[in-house]
Amino acid sequence: MDIIGIAAISLDGCITKHQSEGVSFTSSEDKLFFRKVLRTFDCSVLGSKTFQVSKDEILKTLARERLRVVLTRQPARFLPYAQKDKLEFKNGDLEDIFAELRARNKARCAVLGGTRLYTECIQRGFMNELWVTVEPLGFGSGKRLFEGQVEFRFHLGSVERLSHDTILLKYTVP
Amino acid sequence: MDIIGIAAISLDGCITKHQSEGVSFTSSEDKLFFRKVLRTFDCSVLGSKTFQVSKDEILKTLARERLRVVLTRQPARFLPYAQKDKLEFKNGDLEDIFAELRARNKARCAVLGGTRLYTECIQRGFMNELWVTVEPLGFGSGKRLFEGQVEFRFHLGSVERLSHDTILLKYTVP
Repeated sequence: MDIIGIAAISLDGCITKHQSEGVSFTSSEDKLFFRKVLRTFDCSVLGSKTFQVSKDEILKTLARERLRVVLTRQPARFLPYAQKDKLEFKNGDLEDIFAELRARNKARCAVLGGTRLYTECIQRGFMNELWVTVEPLGFGSGKRLFEGQVEFRFHLGSVERLSHDTILLKYTVP
Repeated sequence: MDIIGIAAISLDGCITKHQSEGVSFTSSEDKLFFRKVLRTFDCSVLGSKTFQVSKDEILKTLARERLRVVLTRQPARFLPYAQKDKLEFKNGDLEDIFAELRARNKARCAVLGGTRLYTECIQRGFMNELWVTVEPLGFGSGKRLFEGQVEFRFHLGSVERLSHDTILLKYTVP
């Protein structure tokens, strides 16, 4: 199973603007890219905070061919939203989560953040690629793309301009 | 006078790796680019911490045609290093610093960091362009490119690959 991280950041590496959760800062071109590209995945994994800020959009686009798995220590809290094969809430080790997706014949998994999930997926060698949209913005503060004292090295695959000011960088994770 | 910020960052927006000051993390291609491009400026401005970590390199390359101005609250501390027209230490408001450089017929000033200097130059409308080398690295922690709760918007001029994995983004600051 291919595991690909997808993130949008400010030029100074923030995935949120200041303390506001969510990606309302991203350009319309990135939002379009994100919606389109997500259709090429048969599953995705995201943290519970990321779910909460994207809930409305996610609930509108539930589909059996694209299982969303939300990681949370309290799956019971989200029971009203759960729909088998479309939107599942799980508490468990990432290795087991990915193993289960493989066992369910999933071939392509998007990792949608936040910070802890991106970091852990790279740190533990799960992620094959990382696609980062760089918006032409500076925030000074906000949640970062990664956390802790890590030392990741990537290889740059492609560079694409999503619009005049917004670029998409696709990295492979060695 | 053109005022252009030059910075190298990790993909997650750090200008230092963890707590280590300096840019030892940058690629040889970025170091080469930086050395070459600096020759096209007739002056530069940098903070005293940035001076301290780059001191050896700076002292080796002092030149009358390229005045370096180090901003510090304690110019007297650096007296042993000072050389008129080559390396000067100043305590003052940025507006006065740039006005003086203009009055001395300087035409092209590089802003070399750190965080506070980049941020203030943009916030106060001094900077015309910002050139950012993005290294294919993730650090999780380190000094950021900007600080505070800012909201900068840039326009992307050019995208250039300095090497397979390292890109140079040139932004204009509106």
